[in-house]
Amino acid sequence: MASNPSPSSPSLNSGSVLQFDRFQSLVDVGFWHRLSSLKLETLGIDQSPITLVGFFAPHSRAQVSNHLTLLSESLPTAPIEHASSIETNLGNRNRCPVPGILYNTNTLEEFKELDRDNLLQIEANKILEDIRLGKVEEDSTLLLRFLVISYADLKTWSFRYLFAFPALVIDPPATLMSLQPATQILTAEEAESLSAACNEWRSSSLTAGIPFFIVSINSDSQATLRPLKDWESCQGDQNKLLFGFYDPCHLKTNPGWPLRNFLTFICLRWKLQKVRFFCYRERLGLANLEVSLIGDALISIQKEPQYIPKVVGWERIGNRLALRCISLAESMDPQRLAASAADLNLKLMRWRAVPSLNLDVLKTAKCLLLGVGTLGCQVARTLLGWGVRKLTLVDSGRVSMSNPVRQSLYTFDDCLNGGRLKAEAAARNLNAIFPAMETEGIVMAIPMPGHPIPAQETASVLEDCKHLQALIASHDVVFLLTDTRESRWLPTLFCSHENKILINAALGFDSYLVMRHGAGPNVSTPDNNLECRDDRTAAALMNELSLKDVGAKQRLGCYFCSDVVAPMDSTSNRTLDQQCTVTRPGLAPIAASLSVELMANILNHPRRIFAPGEIASSITGNSAQPLGLVPHQIRGTISLFSQMTLLGYSSSSCTACSDTVLSEFRSRGMDFVLQAINHPTYLEDLTGLTELKQAAGLFELDWDDETDDDAEIQ
Amino acid sequence: MASNPSPSSPSLNSGSVLQFDRFQSLVDVGFWHRLSSLKLETLGIDQSPITLVGFFAPHSRAQVSNHLTLLSESLPTAPIEHASSIETNLGNRNRCPVPGILYNTNTLEEFKELDRDNLLQIEANKILEDIRLGKVEEDSTLLLRFLVISYADLKTWSFRYLFAFPALVIDPPATLMSLQPATQILTAEEAESLSAACNEWRSSSLTAGIPFFIVSINSDSQATLRPLKDWESCQGDQNKLLFGFYDPCHLKTNPGWPLRNFLTFICLRWKLQKVRFFCYRERLGLANLEVSLIGDALISIQKEPQYIPKVVGWERIGNRLALRCISLAESMDPQRLAASAADLNLKLMRWRAVPSLNLDVLKTAKCLLLGVGTLGCQVARTLLGWGVRKLTLVDSGRVSMSNPVRQSLYTFDDCLNGGRLKAEAAARNLNAIFPAMETEGIVMAIPMPGHPIPAQETASVLEDCKHLQALIASHDVVFLLTDTRESRWLPTLFCSHENKILINAALGFDSYLVMRHGAGPNVSTPDNNLECRDDRTAAALMNELSLKDVGAKQRLGCYFCSDVVAPMDSTSNRTLDQQCTVTRPGLAPIAASLSVELMANILNHPRRIFAPGEIASSITGNSAQPLGLVPHQIRGTISLFSQMTLLGYSSSSCTACSDTVLSEFRSRGMDFVLQAINHPTYLEDLTGLTELKQAAGLFELDWDDETDDDAEIQ
Repeated sequence: MASNPSPSSPSLNSGSVLQFDRFQSLVDVGFWHRLSSLKLETLGIDQSPITLVGFFAPHSRAQVSNHLTLLSESLPTAPIEHASSIETNLGNRNRCPVPGILYNTNTLEEFKELDRDNLLQIEANKILEDIRLGKVEEDSTLLLRFLVISYADLKTWSFRYLFAFPALVIDPPATLMSLQPATQILTAEEAESLSAACNEWRSSSLTAGIPFFIVSINSDSQATLRPLKDWESCQGDQNKLLFGFYDPCHLKTNPGWPLRNFLTFICLRWKLQKVRFFCYRERLGLANLEVSLIGDALISIQKEPQYIPKVVGWERIGNRLALRCISLAESMDPQRLAASAADLNLKLMRWRAVPSLNLDVLKTAKCLLLGVGTLGCQVARTLLGWGVRKLTLVDSGRVSMSNPVRQSLYTFDDCLNGGRLKAEAAARNLNAIFPAMETEGIVMAIPMPGHPIPAQETASVLEDCKHLQALIASHDVVFLLTDTRESRWLPTLFCSHENKILINAALGFDSYLVMRHGAGPNVSTPDNNLECRDDRTAAALMNELSLKDVGAKQRLGCYFCSDVVAPMDSTSNRTLDQQCTVTRPGLAPIAASLSVELMANILNHPRRIFAPGEIASSITGNSAQPLGLVPHQIRGTISLFSQMTLLGYSSSSCTACSDTVLSEFRSRGMDFVLQAINHPTYLEDLTGLTELKQAAGLFELDWDDETDDDAEIQ
Repeated sequence: MASNPSPSSPSLNSGSVLQFDRFQSLVDVGFWHRLSSLKLETLGIDQSPITLVGFFAPHSRAQVSNHLTLLSESLPTAPIEHASSIETNLGNRNRCPVPGILYNTNTLEEFKELDRDNLLQIEANKILEDIRLGKVEEDSTLLLRFLVISYADLKTWSFRYLFAFPALVIDPPATLMSLQPATQILTAEEAESLSAACNEWRSSSLTAGIPFFIVSINSDSQATLRPLKDWESCQGDQNKLLFGFYDPCHLKTNPGWPLRNFLTFICLRWKLQKVRFFCYRERLGLANLEVSLIGDALISIQKEPQYIPKVVGWERIGNRLALRCISLAESMDPQRLAASAADLNLKLMRWRAVPSLNLDVLKTAKCLLLGVGTLGCQVARTLLGWGVRKLTLVDSGRVSMSNPVRQSLYTFDDCLNGGRLKAEAAARNLNAIFPAMETEGIVMAIPMPGHPIPAQETASVLEDCKHLQALIASHDVVFLLTDTRESRWLPTLFCSHENKILINAALGFDSYLVMRHGAGPNVSTPDNNLECRDDRTAAALMNELSLKDVGAKQRLGCYFCSDVVAPMDSTSNRTLDQQCTVTRPGLAPIAASLSVELMANILNHPRRIFAPGEIASSITGNSAQPLGLVPHQIRGTISLFSQMTLLGYSSSSCTACSDTVLSEFRSRGMDFVLQAINHPTYLEDLTGLTELKQAAGLFELDWDDETDDDAEIQ
């Protein structure tokens, strides 16, 4: 230390009020992104305060004070727990961690109405308590506690916020007796030693993040840096002591904000009246004692031991509160913005309505749509709404002029010049709606039983059969949305074989059927395409079920289970109104939406394809499942605006899912399929339906016919 | 007649078999268009044969035979009646009408399987009968009866067809003794006289269309043309007689096809064995005896009086049947094609499902959509499907990134650069789907009660109120598809005032409400915006209803009728999940579709807005109305996949549709509206809801709450 006191050192009575350069905040956009996802995915409507870690560093660049910065890692990683979950990276010398707290409100009104005085006082009280209880000596960053209040409008990606750096106001205020560059106060030797000591302190991962320290300079001009808890032991050695802190401020005329609570601490805890402080500042990553300042301040000791200082600290710009609003929408990649916006509505469901909703199982589900007509277009759209991203669309047709008014993925342009292929147009247009979709359009007709194949086409039909089977095997959910009965046979067979979830929708003129097919016969392995949420329970149930499956008594039926005729050629010789499946325009959107909602319920049920068929009357109040009932069949009619759930079990003479048929397919493979396609009576002969018909006399069951014995009416 | 017989005239024994140039058919595209609309709009699945009128004319252009032509007027004007409805235009000399018949099948299979031999024989038998009964003398065109079989694929605008010109085959066949240009057979004087006579015949509207006639040439070489019925009277005058016919054939070597049945007629009816025939042909619209031919034929008299000749006549090209297929799709204007294709599905409904369906009332209905979000987009699409053409879309918002996955009229592009205005984007995109739409997008926020207006905005809010009222007045159906309760108040008030059909859809998280509002209070005039189908009945019912309306006991309720709180500001201070009306993605398409289907049912009900609220249990089997039930409210929940119809009457303390409120509005106009907007308790005070609340203690009714006393549960 210089032998003479600082030449400009005024008398004790001639000092001015010590004034501090305000702290300034800086928030990285990553912080808001992280906050958004935390809010959406974890917090929901929970408005509990969130523990933060802010970062700062000593001033290091000319003309600029350092900010207190929030980064994405300022927020806790899920799950939220108080304080303990903060990961501070003490090793990063440029990110000294500082504890903070965030009050993020759910609404703008709540934000505006927050009691800021009270919130600030709460934080100040924590600082005061930490001082009085000695916690600050253990962790000096507690002196820098900060507070943020915010309202995050996740719909528009805009964020309003205000920082506070609570400062305990000692009264009367400290008086500044002198303030000069450290090099002017210290001898060259002292300065050199202090520089070295500071650089060592800042380069050790143990101390780099500790912003308050004691500088002890012995009579040999050797400086050492000591943590605050060494205060007692510093008392005996007669060394000169300076109270150092990382100073973010760049001004030569003032110390930075951290000194404020430091002085209060020194005053309250150590009862000093005269303090020589050291504003530690850097250049190019090293201690620089030319820009670092040393000052002398006088403090009045408070007389009352439980004196509660006043508190200030809301960030200001000039005289106004530094209330900020940032919109990220413009800076975000539009496609990414679209993806996050699309997820918004879904994630919001978990805030209040269905906290246990499993959205990932939907997002990752691979869905295969067989048919992209009125039903297929709307199913694709509703899947989009549920956040499903992977869609494969199969259709052999082209977009015709009559399609766009009812098939919601096509426009007039798709009809021109003979019409685009539906599968391709649908895939392309889904991407135009939502670029994050992973769609594939496959132009393929579904081979149908009872439609004999000319010899020269056998090879290509066989290819189609194999392709279809491979598609079904590689997807998680199959939607059967074709407009003929017999085109549903082969997908039903393959899904039964692969034990895939199949959802079937069919339209009449003013009535609709939406149903899921049951599991395949003799299933002994769990469905491993989509993991069950509760594996143990599911496995136990599966064992139980596979026993029952052998008897085929408890399996849910498929579309063909209540038939006594095998699927045959139904397209020939149909009049135009029959060919076009004339339906009321509102029917397809209803049936398609119900299909997807049913899928959502199935995928959120722990037993998935094995979920028992529920009917509304069997459930009192809400279903046990997060999204509600998982029925087997939903049938409705617009002419009465009524809808009901039904349950029907599998039939042992079913032409599509019975053990007899599956066994035959499993042993003979595509030969069996070709025989079924080429020989109209083969399936009936195989399953015994022929005898059944001969015994009972021919009758026809229409699904509109609610006297169907296999169905229990709600 | 020339003094010498034709120089080349062979002996009677040296003649060759008389061969006739085949008739050829030509079908104008107008015929197919007319047939298409006849089929779609009138015939439906009716396959009864259709009476036709074909047109032909004598040969007149070198190198080309004339065709038998079908034009759009060849088909009867609706309604179809047999024969009598054919309008023949005898005055047009180039369109001599010929009776025909069309068998148009519903399917390609039926077309292929038609018993052609039998059909041809039937027509031949008619000709034979007409000959034997003497009808041919009265109407010689009966000899030219023709037959068409067709299959019209209205989905692809392609048409398959085959003509037959039934010819009775006499056995043995006629022998041609000579055939020469008329000028070589006739003297110049005879030819000149015959030309003049023919031109006169052809220029008189009475005879121009009569294709068979007798030429009588007296000894002064003067020719006259006589109708066939004059045959008897021609017998006495010793004149030379020729049997003339309009010959479509251009060949010098053969007469045309009409001679064939003419000879049979002459043979069977008049028992002549030697016939001099005159093939009448023209050039430049005048008789031309150089190209007209005169020939001599010998016929054997049939011995059996009831001899049935064989019949030939299916049109051939070479040796193959002239089976033709024409596709009009390529020649049609794509936009027109789209419009007709869009109508196809609707018109097909009337074939079988709902013959009494009134599509025009839908096509001409002007629909106003308030809100173009998830509900509005799907309502617009379903209206499109129902053939509604006039849509006005009102919304003040812009398309945001989260919209396209759920709002089916928008794509990613609509979200870029801050987003397009929804009203405008929706209108534009509807036109891209279907160019015939008449859409208008109106960017306007709906003024809401309980949202006080700053003084400087009063004028513009007042403008909005007036604009909204004008819009409602100029439309037939209003859809209320906004997402807040209070934005429904003003449209409800205005619709009640204008007595407009209003359909209201509202979504919860997994439940929906679709309802129509009742008529306004004290309505004494019929709804004259949409004409009732049965005016007398409707007027009678209206009288009855208007009496009931005074008491407001039987009017159906509006959205606010079961409330005990007036609509107030519900958007402030809502969390994100509440602001976004978080709903299951399938909900909006279902509620929107039901809204439009309900509209279709209302517009097809003779009492329209006065239709009593039906509930499913009150109807046994199908409703009396063509499209089924016209319920008041439809409520459903996806968590149970259930749906029900409910009925609730209007409340005399309703804040939106009660007599009290309407009277106040009618006397004070927009002043009343502004007061309601600016003073949150005004509506409650006015209607007495305040007292009601004070009396009962505050409670809230949610529409999910099925204990609502005003509703009868199905």
